Amino acid sequence: MLLNYEGVIVKMNLIEDKFLRLGAENAPGQETRQNTVNIELRGEKIPGTPVDFSHGDVDAFEPIPGSLDVFVEGFHIGGKQAYTEYRGSKIIREDVARKLSTFTGSSIDDDKNLIITPGTQGALFLAMGSIIARGDKVAIVAPDYFANRKLVEFFDGEVVPIQMEYFNTNTSSGLDLSQLEAAFKSGAKLFLFSNPNNPTGVIYSQEEIRTIAELAQQYGASVIVDQLYSRQLFDGHTFTHLCSQNIMDPENVITIMGPSKTESLSGYRLGVAFGSSRIIDRMEKLQAIVSLRAGGYNQAVLKSWFKEPDGWMAQRIKDHQAIRDDLLGKFNAVEGFKVRPTEAGSYIFPKVPELEVPIVDFVKILRLQAGVTVTPGTEFGSQFTDSFRLNFSQDHKAAVDAINRIIQVVELYRK
Amino acid sequence: MLLNYEGVIVKMNLIEDKFLRLGAENAPGQETRQNTVNIELRGEKIPGTPVDFSHGDVDAFEPIPGSLDVFVEGFHIGGKQAYTEYRGSKIIREDVARKLSTFTGSSIDDDKNLIITPGTQGALFLAMGSIIARGDKVAIVAPDYFANRKLVEFFDGEVVPIQMEYFNTNTSSGLDLSQLEAAFKSGAKLFLFSNPNNPTGVIYSQEEIRTIAELAQQYGASVIVDQLYSRQLFDGHTFTHLCSQNIMDPENVITIMGPSKTESLSGYRLGVAFGSSRIIDRMEKLQAIVSLRAGGYNQAVLKSWFKEPDGWMAQRIKDHQAIRDDLLGKFNAVEGFKVRPTEAGSYIFPKVPELEVPIVDFVKILRLQAGVTVTPGTEFGSQFTDSFRLNFSQDHKAAVDAINRIIQVVELYRK
Repeated sequence: MLLNYEGVIVKMNLIEDKFLRLGAENAPGQETRQNTVNIELRGEKIPGTPVDFSHGDVDAFEPIPGSLDVFVEGFHIGGKQAYTEYRGSKIIREDVARKLSTFTGSSIDDDKNLIITPGTQGALFLAMGSIIARGDKVAIVAPDYFANRKLVEFFDGEVVPIQMEYFNTNTSSGLDLSQLEAAFKSGAKLFLFSNPNNPTGVIYSQEEIRTIAELAQQYGASVIVDQLYSRQLFDGHTFTHLCSQNIMDPENVITIMGPSKTESLSGYRLGVAFGSSRIIDRMEKLQAIVSLRAGGYNQAVLKSWFKEPDGWMAQRIKDHQAIRDDLLGKFNAVEGFKVRPTEAGSYIFPKVPELEVPIVDFVKILRLQAGVTVTPGTEFGSQFTDSFRLNFSQDHKAAVDAINRIIQVVELYRK
Repeated sequence: MLLNYEGVIVKMNLIEDKFLRLGAENAPGQETRQNTVNIELRGEKIPGTPVDFSHGDVDAFEPIPGSLDVFVEGFHIGGKQAYTEYRGSKIIREDVARKLSTFTGSSIDDDKNLIITPGTQGALFLAMGSIIARGDKVAIVAPDYFANRKLVEFFDGEVVPIQMEYFNTNTSSGLDLSQLEAAFKSGAKLFLFSNPNNPTGVIYSQEEIRTIAELAQQYGASVIVDQLYSRQLFDGHTFTHLCSQNIMDPENVITIMGPSKTESLSGYRLGVAFGSSRIIDRMEKLQAIVSLRAGGYNQAVLKSWFKEPDGWMAQRIKDHQAIRDDLLGKFNAVEGFKVRPTEAGSYIFPKVPELEVPIVDFVKILRLQAGVTVTPGTEFGSQFTDSFRLNFSQDHKAAVDAINRIIQVVELYRK
């Protein structure tokens, strides 16, 4: 009980404060709910096809062919598909566990080590809620996915930021491993990171992954790896799955994946978490009170995942690499922009020239003046006041034109 | 920080304890994961079509005609439907707000007062998580939906049970209103209840609803009403919507509904919460880290809700009332059974004759020996050791046969 002399007041503030910290105004997809009353534009609107870089465009890159057909088949299976176990349909889990075992080079028992969730966001929420107790220190990367910090705070944990100096190298992510060790030493019991990193699109080197695993093992910590974009690798890059390194106690590792990004299945809300049976058990218990299960018919759509038509994935990667190249070329031609080339996934996280407006205002200006939506760097860590993220899984020509407009707007507000 | 001389140990136990209390073994749909090693059967298996009374059978009572078509249309809308605002697609919210305003007799602003969620479970989780702070007292009914207690405990609240003496009356629910007032007096800031009540199927009288609202208003408490089954009323019963009584500050009321039960759309995972704009805002922020949004394409299916073909709902209610009548007749013919007739929804909560085995074992026996799955009363409150719940939205003949088998098994284990 937390009571001061005013009684309930303290508790009221507890929940209000918590939700103040949970602000979603700048989160992708929420931009239309933003307050833009105080935004003043310099000059006229710049015409062009609106582009929403806050997430991928599933009209430009469509869902896996046949995904709707498997959904319809799922519907016609009826009650068995509508009411699955909370961790997901046994038949679907068998199929997914087999496919992910092959992909990751690890051994996944469909009965013990895997849960199907409503999107990878669902997997992340359940995993964090199953590990973090009040007051726990949780190490997260700066920059990394914006929900990570919010999740730690929602579960009353304490964020320990680990810096990633992504501009200092091109052979690794640049994660400060000594900071990570210090975090573990100071009692952090969980390390959460995305690989490839969101928002920079860099891949952790094998050496980094092995060191992360060794440190976690040494200090008895758990690790959650969000590998959402790990199938979309450019320039012949290789990817190291932490779960197959056999360094950590497998009961302390959870890996998260899903078909929402490269495969454009986001509209179905599907994700999976696999690894520790102890944590998966808890996640299922939590799922039982959060939303029961991933949509029953939706689960059937996972049949199309890792079973795309021949050549489909290779073509998709090639198309994305071509867009990336054009966008990087544009940014690199302008003084003051600094970008590390995306190694995997569809994100670019450019550092912008010095501006006369804060990044959060710049992002609103960009949307109002040029019809271009991006996500401010501050969503990924409070110090990223000079960067924004864009998801370049877009119509190629529209994306290039939009970058031209971004550059025009930067010139209008440059210091 | 919660540290004793052993440091982290205290915190480890915190999360382990929390998940021990979150047991889902006896929850509907999880029965196949139960441990039945120690269950001994008296006599042979009793043959018959297996019936799973733990939830409705959407093969016996199929989804609203055309629901799949609207899903497919939603898919073809593409990116706009895949990536909606976290609170759900504006167009769908407009439609649902209009329909629910008419149904409840209240005024729902689609922009401020409504959120689309992954099932009503999702709505319940988000609403509870948006109101309950650590240590808060929360009044819940005994018996009521099994997740209610678990949700309060997950959010570190304190359960204050309010007894419902449902056998003592047939003109109201039998809720002990003096207990409710005592709970508010002792500091409970939230009252959560389902109407019609799950598991008994009784409807709160208008007088009860008005008294609940008056008490909550008097003590400044919030109320969450789960009205999942409020469209399926039998015997000409009327239903009182708390949200349209104009007694409470509307910013302290959240109503939850969804198409998963009567309308058999559970496989799409759709629910809505409406009411307080302050709480809906928080729920959206929480949704942003829980699962982003209800499945985008799935949301489109809400177009078919409250727009069922002419006569479809009336027929569905009639069919259910006929099943209810047969089942009640069966139970009432056996000495020791006691049942209050279901007034709304598809649940029956019979008190069983005294048995020589605990109710949790009896339920396992029933499944193993007779192929009949029901939910033990203890899920709805620890004192209901002599009752079980069944959802009679089943094939009519199979349901009647299954009741015969239940009675046979009761005779084998009767004290």
